Amino acid sequence: MTVVKSTIPESARQVTGEALQSTLVDLLGLSLIAKQVHWNIVGPRFRSIHLQLDEVVASAREFADTVAERSSALGIPADGRPETIATAFTLPSPKDGWVRDEDAVALMTETLGAAIARLRERIKVTDEPDPVTQDLLISITAELEKQRWMFDAENWPKGD
Amino acid sequence: MTVVKSTIPESARQVTGEALQSTLVDLLGLSLIAKQVHWNIVGPRFRSIHLQLDEVVASAREFADTVAERSSALGIPADGRPETIATAFTLPSPKDGWVRDEDAVALMTETLGAAIARLRERIKVTDEPDPVTQDLLISITAELEKQRWMFDAENWPKGD
Amino acid sequence: MTVVKSTIPESARQVTGEALQSTLVDLLGLSLIAKQVHWNIVGPRFRSIHLQLDEVVASAREFADTVAERSSALGIPADGRPETIATAFTLPSPKDGWVRDEDAVALMTETLGAAIARLRERIKVTDEPDPVTQDLLISITAELEKQRWMFDAENWPKGD
Amino acid sequence: MTVVKSTIPESARQVTGEALQSTLVDLLGLSLIAKQVHWNIVGPRFRSIHLQLDEVVASAREFADTVAERSSALGIPADGRPETIATAFTLPSPKDGWVRDEDAVALMTETLGAAIARLRERIKVTDEPDPVTQDLLISITAELEKQRWMFDAENWPKGD
Amino acid sequence: MTVVKSTIPESARQVTGEALQSTLVDLLGLSLIAKQVHWNIVGPRFRSIHLQLDEVVASAREFADTVAERSSALGIPADGRPETIATAFTLPSPKDGWVRDEDAVALMTETLGAAIARLRERIKVTDEPDPVTQDLLISITAELEKQRWMFDAENWPKGD
Amino acid sequence: MTVVKSTIPESARQVTGEALQSTLVDLLGLSLIAKQVHWNIVGPRFRSIHLQLDEVVASAREFADTVAERSSALGIPADGRPETIATAFTLPSPKDGWVRDEDAVALMTETLGAAIARLRERIKVTDEPDPVTQDLLISITAELEKQRWMFDAENWPKGD
Amino acid sequence: MTVVKSTIPESARQVTGEALQSTLVDLLGLSLIAKQVHWNIVGPRFRSIHLQLDEVVASAREFADTVAERSSALGIPADGRPETIATAFTLPSPKDGWVRDEDAVALMTETLGAAIARLRERIKVTDEPDPVTQDLLISITAELEKQRWMFDAENWPKGD
Amino acid sequence: MTVVKSTIPESARQVTGEALQSTLVDLLGLSLIAKQVHWNIVGPRFRSIHLQLDEVVASAREFADTVAERSSALGIPADGRPETIATAFTLPSPKDGWVRDEDAVALMTETLGAAIARLRERIKVTDEPDPVTQDLLISITAELEKQRWMFDAENWPKGD
Amino acid sequence: MTVVKSTIPESARQVTGEALQSTLVDLLGLSLIAKQVHWNIVGPRFRSIHLQLDEVVASAREFADTVAERSSALGIPADGRPETIATAFTLPSPKDGWVRDEDAVALMTETLGAAIARLRERIKVTDEPDPVTQDLLISITAELEKQRWMFDAENWPKGD
Amino acid sequence: MTVVKSTIPESARQVTGEALQSTLVDLLGLSLIAKQVHWNIVGPRFRSIHLQLDEVVASAREFADTVAERSSALGIPADGRPETIATAFTLPSPKDGWVRDEDAVALMTETLGAAIARLRERIKVTDEPDPVTQDLLISITAELEKQRWMFDAENWPKGD
Amino acid sequence: MTVVKSTIPESARQVTGEALQSTLVDLLGLSLIAKQVHWNIVGPRFRSIHLQLDEVVASAREFADTVAERSSALGIPADGRPETIATAFTLPSPKDGWVRDEDAVALMTETLGAAIARLRERIKVTDEPDPVTQDLLISITAELEKQRWMFDAENWPKGD
Amino acid sequence: MTVVKSTIPESARQVTGEALQSTLVDLLGLSLIAKQVHWNIVGPRFRSIHLQLDEVVASAREFADTVAERSSALGIPADGRPETIATAFTLPSPKDGWVRDEDAVALMTETLGAAIARLRERIKVTDEPDPVTQDLLISITAELEKQRWMFDAENWPKGD
Repeated sequence: MTVVKSTIPESARQVTGEALQSTLVDLLGLSLIAKQVHWNIVGPRFRSIHLQLDEVVASAREFADTVAERSSALGIPADGRPETIATAFTLPSPKDGWVRDEDAVALMTETLGAAIARLRERIKVTDEPDPVTQDLLISITAELEKQRWMFDAENWPKGD
Repeated sequence: MTVVKSTIPESARQVTGEALQSTLVDLLGLSLIAKQVHWNIVGPRFRSIHLQLDEVVASAREFADTVAERSSALGIPADGRPETIATAFTLPSPKDGWVRDEDAVALMTETLGAAIARLRERIKVTDEPDPVTQDLLISITAELEKQRWMFDAENWPKGD
Repeated sequence: MTVVKSTIPESARQVTGEALQSTLVDLLGLSLIAKQVHWNIVGPRFRSIHLQLDEVVASAREFADTVAERSSALGIPADGRPETIATAFTLPSPKDGWVRDEDAVALMTETLGAAIARLRERIKVTDEPDPVTQDLLISITAELEKQRWMFDAENWPKGD
Repeated sequence: MTVVKSTIPESARQVTGEALQSTLVDLLGLSLIAKQVHWNIVGPRFRSIHLQLDEVVASAREFADTVAERSSALGIPADGRPETIATAFTLPSPKDGWVRDEDAVALMTETLGAAIARLRERIKVTDEPDPVTQDLLISITAELEKQRWMFDAENWPKGD
Repeated sequence: MTVVKSTIPESARQVTGEALQSTLVDLLGLSLIAKQVHWNIVGPRFRSIHLQLDEVVASAREFADTVAERSSALGIPADGRPETIATAFTLPSPKDGWVRDEDAVALMTETLGAAIARLRERIKVTDEPDPVTQDLLISITAELEKQRWMFDAENWPKGD
Repeated sequence: MTVVKSTIPESARQVTGEALQSTLVDLLGLSLIAKQVHWNIVGPRFRSIHLQLDEVVASAREFADTVAERSSALGIPADGRPETIATAFTLPSPKDGWVRDEDAVALMTETLGAAIARLRERIKVTDEPDPVTQDLLISITAELEKQRWMFDAENWPKGD
Repeated sequence: MTVVKSTIPESARQVTGEALQSTLVDLLGLSLIAKQVHWNIVGPRFRSIHLQLDEVVASAREFADTVAERSSALGIPADGRPETIATAFTLPSPKDGWVRDEDAVALMTETLGAAIARLRERIKVTDEPDPVTQDLLISITAELEKQRWMFDAENWPKGD
Repeated sequence: MTVVKSTIPESARQVTGEALQSTLVDLLGLSLIAKQVHWNIVGPRFRSIHLQLDEVVASAREFADTVAERSSALGIPADGRPETIATAFTLPSPKDGWVRDEDAVALMTETLGAAIARLRERIKVTDEPDPVTQDLLISITAELEKQRWMFDAENWPKGD
Repeated sequence: MTVVKSTIPESARQVTGEALQSTLVDLLGLSLIAKQVHWNIVGPRFRSIHLQLDEVVASAREFADTVAERSSALGIPADGRPETIATAFTLPSPKDGWVRDEDAVALMTETLGAAIARLRERIKVTDEPDPVTQDLLISITAELEKQRWMFDAENWPKGD
Repeated sequence: MTVVKSTIPESARQVTGEALQSTLVDLLGLSLIAKQVHWNIVGPRFRSIHLQLDEVVASAREFADTVAERSSALGIPADGRPETIATAFTLPSPKDGWVRDEDAVALMTETLGAAIARLRERIKVTDEPDPVTQDLLISITAELEKQRWMFDAENWPKGD
Repeated sequence: MTVVKSTIPESARQVTGEALQSTLVDLLGLSLIAKQVHWNIVGPRFRSIHLQLDEVVASAREFADTVAERSSALGIPADGRPETIATAFTLPSPKDGWVRDEDAVALMTETLGAAIARLRERIKVTDEPDPVTQDLLISITAELEKQRWMFDAENWPKGD
Repeated sequence: MTVVKSTIPESARQVTGEALQSTLVDLLGLSLIAKQVHWNIVGPRFRSIHLQLDEVVASAREFADTVAERSSALGIPADGRPETIATAFTLPSPKDGWVRDEDAVALMTETLGAAIARLRERIKVTDEPDPVTQDLLISITAELEKQRWMFDAENWPKGD
């Protein structure tokens, strides 16, 4: 028996559900690692990046909520439990312990870049099955690209 | 070389650090599973409990932040990464998929009760080594006990 | 003589104008019947659904305003007068008198579902003639789908 | 069987109920036509009257809600569905299409004047049966008379 | 010697003073028992009614303050001390201990109904001696009738 | 030719217009002399009464605005020009120069008392011609009686 | 059958429950008598103390709510009904009628002093059974001691 | 005996006091006549100028308060009583009754222009005796010149 | 060496960058000329259009910021320096000196219309290379079309 | 080597720097002693003056910040360290221990008067070297003269 | 024919008008180049200076508006069109493309310094013709000197 | 004669009073030197630390107020006069003149560390005599340890 009925056809629901579930995992994982770095960062730029990371957390949490509720709205229960995130989250992450400020900036640039690349794929595949979900993914991409740029801009001149 | 210096002696720091790290895992896990139920709950009481769960999430997130920053303040980097939570979180959790409203209430009563029992242990062991940390754990316990009561009160009459 | 000039060609204006006018009627009708149920609902879940219905009203009113002003912006005077709504509104509606809470939930699930189906048609037909209007219809659909899910979720287990 | 019990005797309830139901229709109709003119007004005074009309809408909506809830409080379910408004609303209304600013001002002066005359009748008949309802009708009249004056004042010099 | 001079004649002051003092006792008693139920309610509807009761408390407290200050303004010191309330308060009240949600709803419907009946008497007797006080009693009645309706609406279907 | 049309008959308009015009003068005069004392008060209670007087000014200004606009709404232009106030204002007023705090309190008690007595007359005469205006006068009286009481209460023990 | 389960052992629950119940009575009684004096105070310091007393009322009400909800959270239904307060409240209270400002100050100094002495006893006895409750009692004491000081400071020079 | 001591020498105090007293009269008179026109304006531009006039009133009232308190601060009791304003106020003023919108604009342009000319004289004479008062007069002039410009700009093309 | 890395391929970046840069110039130019008219407008409608123009400025400034930051986010430094705007801005602009209100309205209708036509071109060309940028351009168009309509509506009847 | 460059010539910078440094000491000292009296005041007027003193503290702190930052802006590091204040602060100050309310008022009148006399000297000497600094000193003087007046007004009748 | 009349004599108006027009160009140019750097800055200090620059923009925009409106108030239409700024703006500006953080700081220090030097000239020349305009120029200088200091302070140690 | 009566016994009052007085001096001194560095800091990290220091000042001022008022509440007048702070304040402090950003960070880490060590001593000695004061000292320590950590984190890598 159907619990919550979908407003889109079964085939569309399949593709869209997968796009939303993987986006949810990326956003929840991102919120956790950005907080991790927020707590453990050290170095002269501590305060500035400590504050900047909380903006990443706030965006990631708010979008995660919207994504999961959209999944429910399409009749697909989302999964954001600890073990699911731990298993499915594949973006670059910090090691345990203190994180140097310049490493934090490099990491966030990389992690956000990887998240964006995955979102752009999902924008493509949801265009036909559900333009409403696609529009949400576009909004998330716009915000993460803005945040990625700000880390990239302060990641300069790049060492090596 | 010490990165962030502690303001309490080494022995006190050990006990306090463990109390804070395990509290952090409980709070982050709690915030994730309360959100999970917030998204997937179904049944006549959907709206009321959907809203109530977001208050649990808000408290858990805010206290997690305070706990992790207190850990840093004592010179101990906290660990709230996905894999750490997945491994260390042991409180009762929801299954995947839709959750009936009455099951949600029973689960939250149980999960909060378990979290509280663990917090009360930590209040005892931190009394001597760090009364400042103990005071924080007391505040968290007060809030979680209030939230547990509200789920317990609406968990009545209890099925059998 | 043209009163307000359109920024899109005549053919596009025709299709878009019809999509906006029928959306306006659906939203105004929705705002009126959601208020009707808000006032006349009875049953144990009275308070929760009474409040939930006001969120439907608030969304419907705000979107109706945006839709009608967009119609004006395209040089097409919208029509939201009582007799127009009475004639053109075809979504499922409540009977006169008190409404039981469970009937209110079932009705809103059905009414919102019907409104969404009609919106998804309009998203398709406006894609080519006016992507700006299409974007507005996508936003409305996203919000109504969220609200439909919340009624559907509390419409469970469905009697019969 | 009584659903919601009245706090006033049956005879009082009859008169009061009719006064509230006809006031509700006038206010809902007023809110719809004021919005209609808000969207479709043209002419040099567009912006000023466009804004002024939204104040009429806001008052009419808020009073309609209070009137309908007072009806429920007296055990009488109110009726504000589209077909009821279309049938029962008799105040002067705009035609379809663009409305010239000076016609908008003249129309609102007339519509509000007619609404006020009907309210003053209801203030008289509710004095004895329910002074609580009468007090509400007095408040509505005070506000509509203030708004009527403002349209009348800008309706001058009156054309002929 | 007069402490605070009255602005109405002695005879009017007598009747008005009694109406205000008995209203004060009803409102203070109402605020205390609504809080009592707010704390001790249990059952599936706990959260919804817990919140609803705080709206009763807020109204009762605010009106009690206005009533007592109006009494002072007429040169009559009001009496809202614990022993006075305990002696003079006669509205239906909860027993000691936990209160089931459905009993809470039935009790509040009854208590508010009784308070309203007494207020309507006072509206009658103050009409001639002091229309200013009468106007205040009308406002209180309007608010309590709204709150009574909301409990009555969720008190349905009434068991028997 | 009528400029702003009245919503009440000519006879009612005469009585009501006079009540509003004389109330306007009393309130504007009151706002000016309360400010005068606010600026010139001296003595140990300076700060407390300086602040209290600004509450009189705020009430008087707000009610004056409502009264004058109600007059306009009834088709009667109000008159609040300096020379009109100077001629028509007859309430007890301060002398030029510094005012002792105890004299300020005694004066305000007296002035407010005189204003109230005049308002109570107007409440009587407007009952039949315009209950909407009467309701406004009742509100003003309630507020001024509250403020008079507060001055009277601190005017104790009265010297002599 | 247990209604709301306690998170502390039975013995601890007994002591803690008594401390909370007697604190609740003191706070509710305090809120009632501070309001009583707020309404009936006369004398040159009327306004200053009238405002100060409302801060006592606000604190007492807020703490009463927290105390009663903490009692529920420990599985003990609190009792704040009128007859319970009348019977159990033993702090110094005002007589009926007007209260001179200097008597009001002396009374509040004395009442708050007595309430504090009782709270300090309860801080001692709850230390071992429930440090969470103890922490709440400490917060209440801190606030009441601040308010007592302010009355004591203005109670000087003490007459006699 | 001096009541409030001045912080500037006697000669300076004379000139400054006169500048402040005449500014006070101009501002209080301005606030009264701007309100008068606010209430009685008629014509197509009613709403726009009705709102604009309230900004004049707000500025005039706020500056009047600052000016009078500055006078007190220099040991000179200000005089803003009705009879003083009526006698000393000499700026162009409206006649009794309705005011056409274009006449209102012309009047306010003229009145503000006259007030500014007088202020500019006072800026000159206070430069040496009290630069603190001069600075206040400069602020008032800046604001009134801004308001005069806005009336002058809408006073175009000037009839004749 | 790349400074800020792009998240889209080089070819897409070229088209998108040009669309953003030309939009930036249009918006900055629009913000400057709307302010210019805001300062220099004269005529009976001065106040209404003066205020309306500030809404154009606010939108143009906020969108300009979003557009330039999106350009940076794609690795393309935007150019909004005075000389760049002066050279590249080609929309209809006001002459130096005072501007009559009716000319201001006609100009803004025209300028906004020209800006919209250019935006609609850019919406087309960015569809394939970057749907995220396209979505931003759609939002800007929606807002400017709303503002254009409001000027067009008050630009009626159009002179000839 | 210059650290922060001055925008005024060396000679002007000398005079201005001294004026700012001595003003800073006066304001910081004033903020400390006003707080001291705020904490230790006793007597019937405790609450009123306790609150009034916090307004002195707020002004003194805010101006001290502006003064010190202006000094930095002129290339002169300000000095507000404890030992500097203790050495350079010469305004009348309270003794240790409780302060009677009437003594507090007399002291603040005197201290503020002394601060103002010194400020008026600095207004004179900075006129030519730096009108920007002079303007700031004028603002401070205006505020302190207002506060001095309020203490002086409540310092009456002055004992002898 | 005069459009907006000046409140100062012709000779004064000439000098003042020039001071205002050149200040307007400096402020508008400053707002554009500070935004330019806000968008294009790169380097480790990106976030801190990115935020700081928006404060420059906010100040420059707000002062530009006040300056241009003051010009209108003196009967002189200001000119802030793109081509005027491009021609008349002479302060140091950034090149096209990315800007290193340290170069941004050095540039802003220099640009603000140049703007201040020009403002100080205008303060001198407007002293006699219009002290009201002079007072505005003093306020702008105070703010820009504060902002210049903050860039200069972080421009240390200066490279060379 | 006792001025303000203590609520704790004489012996407890001695120890507690000393703890509060020395904490007051530390907090007031801290607020002064943090402001000193806030004004005089130079170097690339100027803005970030300038803002961070104001958070130290805000905390120190608020806690100083609470500490001094708690002292009064225990019947002990606190002493926060300039000369007392200068004499008793012993924490590491800045020299006169500009302070390099890295030196500011090192100094604040050290000063806060020293303040915390002293607070932890006082937490120990007040445990028995006054748990209410102890609880306040714990709160202050928690906040200062958080602030110390943030300076320590950005004090890395530590030079040499």
